[in-house]
Amino acid sequence: MTSSLERQKLIRSVAEAARAASRIVARATEDQRNRALLAIADAIEAGSADVLIANARDLANATDLAPAMLDRLRLDAARIAKLAAAVREVAAQPALLGRIEGTEVRPNGLQVSRVRIPLGVIAMIYEARPGVTTDAAALCLKAGNACILRGGKEAFETNRALLRTVQAGLAVADLPAEAVQLVPMTDREAIADLVKLEDLIDLAIPRGGEGLIRFVAEHARVPVIKHYKGVCHVYVHAAADLEIALAIVRNAKVSRPGVCNAAETVLIDRTIAAAFLPRMIEALPEVELRGDAEACALAPSLHAATEEDWAAEYLDLVLAVKIVDDLPSAVAHIERYGSSHTEAIVTTERASAERFLHDVDSSTVLVNASTRFADGGELGLGAEIGISTTRIHAYGPMGAEGLTTTKFVVRGTGQIRS
Amino acid sequence: MTSSLERQKLIRSVAEAARAASRIVARATEDQRNRALLAIADAIEAGSADVLIANARDLANATDLAPAMLDRLRLDAARIAKLAAAVREVAAQPALLGRIEGTEVRPNGLQVSRVRIPLGVIAMIYEARPGVTTDAAALCLKAGNACILRGGKEAFETNRALLRTVQAGLAVADLPAEAVQLVPMTDREAIADLVKLEDLIDLAIPRGGEGLIRFVAEHARVPVIKHYKGVCHVYVHAAADLEIALAIVRNAKVSRPGVCNAAETVLIDRTIAAAFLPRMIEALPEVELRGDAEACALAPSLHAATEEDWAAEYLDLVLAVKIVDDLPSAVAHIERYGSSHTEAIVTTERASAERFLHDVDSSTVLVNASTRFADGGELGLGAEIGISTTRIHAYGPMGAEGLTTTKFVVRGTGQIRS
Repeated sequence: MTSSLERQKLIRSVAEAARAASRIVARATEDQRNRALLAIADAIEAGSADVLIANARDLANATDLAPAMLDRLRLDAARIAKLAAAVREVAAQPALLGRIEGTEVRPNGLQVSRVRIPLGVIAMIYEARPGVTTDAAALCLKAGNACILRGGKEAFETNRALLRTVQAGLAVADLPAEAVQLVPMTDREAIADLVKLEDLIDLAIPRGGEGLIRFVAEHARVPVIKHYKGVCHVYVHAAADLEIALAIVRNAKVSRPGVCNAAETVLIDRTIAAAFLPRMIEALPEVELRGDAEACALAPSLHAATEEDWAAEYLDLVLAVKIVDDLPSAVAHIERYGSSHTEAIVTTERASAERFLHDVDSSTVLVNASTRFADGGELGLGAEIGISTTRIHAYGPMGAEGLTTTKFVVRGTGQIRS
Repeated sequence: MTSSLERQKLIRSVAEAARAASRIVARATEDQRNRALLAIADAIEAGSADVLIANARDLANATDLAPAMLDRLRLDAARIAKLAAAVREVAAQPALLGRIEGTEVRPNGLQVSRVRIPLGVIAMIYEARPGVTTDAAALCLKAGNACILRGGKEAFETNRALLRTVQAGLAVADLPAEAVQLVPMTDREAIADLVKLEDLIDLAIPRGGEGLIRFVAEHARVPVIKHYKGVCHVYVHAAADLEIALAIVRNAKVSRPGVCNAAETVLIDRTIAAAFLPRMIEALPEVELRGDAEACALAPSLHAATEEDWAAEYLDLVLAVKIVDDLPSAVAHIERYGSSHTEAIVTTERASAERFLHDVDSSTVLVNASTRFADGGELGLGAEIGISTTRIHAYGPMGAEGLTTTKFVVRGTGQIRS
């Protein structure tokens, strides 16, 4: 037997165990699942010393990681406390499973309902961020699923330590350890094997760099929920309140430039460009601005944007600036270069706001608010397992509900079909 | 340029045109989309002579098709009238798009809603059934999508004639012809090219034989909604009304054995097996019954089932029969051999019914009703674009709503994120 066959066999056995465990988690009571979550939170706190030791080992091994990646990998007492708090928040969310969504009695007397159920087995594929381990475990369990975690090799020891806390919590609530498993192999081939198992895995969620996400999408036979990047736009409309526009543009770009809901391009309506652009430049002293020809003519201090800038996700203190004719031009630009993630309009004109909200089909559209609000916690989902620009049941920030679906439940009195 | 590159280029241009048209269909009014549907229904009727000529040409070419396939391919005046009626029914369905699903005001004053929107571009891949052409076009348009149809080569002329009626209807309502297109190539490579276009296509729905569906799943980079087969079970519980059980088993097996919601296995509770099995054999004279050892011991006229029988989708007058210990054994058998499609329990005991409905996670679960009701029309969806055993937003019979999703719409007054 080759090593590749051994690996496939091991991955399949992990997934088979997850499938069996998923049925037990699905049939458990809401109270039992919540008890597991609260016990996991307690175990995270009780085990924090172990987790920190494991994390120190990962950090010591991570000699070639960039500073931003090292920061993502690093845990401390405060970060561990936050992980536990996030699990408790998930436990406190209202129950999803068993929720009846519309009941109809058919002319033949059949009573047809749709009932919310778990998806089954979720494969979560991520990189250096160990917090995903406990967040994903908590959300999957809340939604009645088993999950298979495949974290990055940089965080391997930390993830193992966190998994022990999760399994301690599962044991307290008499739920099987196989409900949350960690794939022990950190090579990419293991990911490819995993996301091919369409008889055992219901959904794959890759989180991380575009390379990882493309790898998963390329090899998957199971549905994949993902977003490659967030090229988010703020459109400053002709009827914008310029003070509000300045605050929103600054917040959307500068508050956390490395995240996917940060703005990458500002579209400025021609009518107000001469009034707004100089003020915007003044408000963004630390940002490199790259303008189209018209913006550069108005403000010669701008760098000239190239075609690549319009589709760029800088994840940095760089912002593309374009002057547009009107609302339809802004929408057309977003259609052409956007990533279906998040777009905002700043305007005092209600009809224009509604038109933008209607016409732009990105997963989150906002009026007079920062793109940074495209986040599960901010939008009221409680916690977030990812942001989807895949247009299936979860489009935009995705919480526990995105890890469920519905089945048809039909109650009859002996009906047969004619 | 090779022929393969030419084909890829043509497929991409079809998809690009569909993407552009999808935005126009999405922004049209509900009235405009319904006008198109009614005009399509009129055009189907007005063009029925053309459609029948084209169908006669396909039938003449289909010298090597099996009789069942020939029957699926054949249209006549009555079948064409039904196609038009189905499109009118879709037009009469209540509006889905723009529906607001939950609005919440966050502590910072942001008003967050989820609003129902189209998916975008749907690729529909099917075989000899030309009725899918107008059904799929109608459901996609109702849900605000563009669609790309790739029918089987057996129905190519018929599909072209039906497409002309669809495009006549689109023109009446000033909607672009590119909203519904037919891929002009009937080789499988064209399918592979199509379902790889993840920047242009949002969902692929294959309908047909398992070979076609596996081909699509294997090559797709876009989400695929599918079911490979329907291995549907009827479980006759210890507390079943045996008259009801006989009627349901007969209906589930015999009324249309060639469809996916026909029963393939009957599970009989041991308690009532001696009373029920002889009567069931009497009630199914035309059916070949294949029993496990215990059933064969009770009724020596049965054929002996092999392991393959438990997972078989016969699509024929054959039925597997197994004696089970109790409800958990029935559920365990379904978990092991079922296809997540449709399962029914026959019982007068409410608690057992509810336990079965809860524990079986197939897309449709019924009590005291035939598995044949797993159908969009029967369950109240109005029309059906397919049945999904993929656990995403559409699980089970899938109508227009399965061709939509929701986006987050956020209304603020200048909020920025702290």
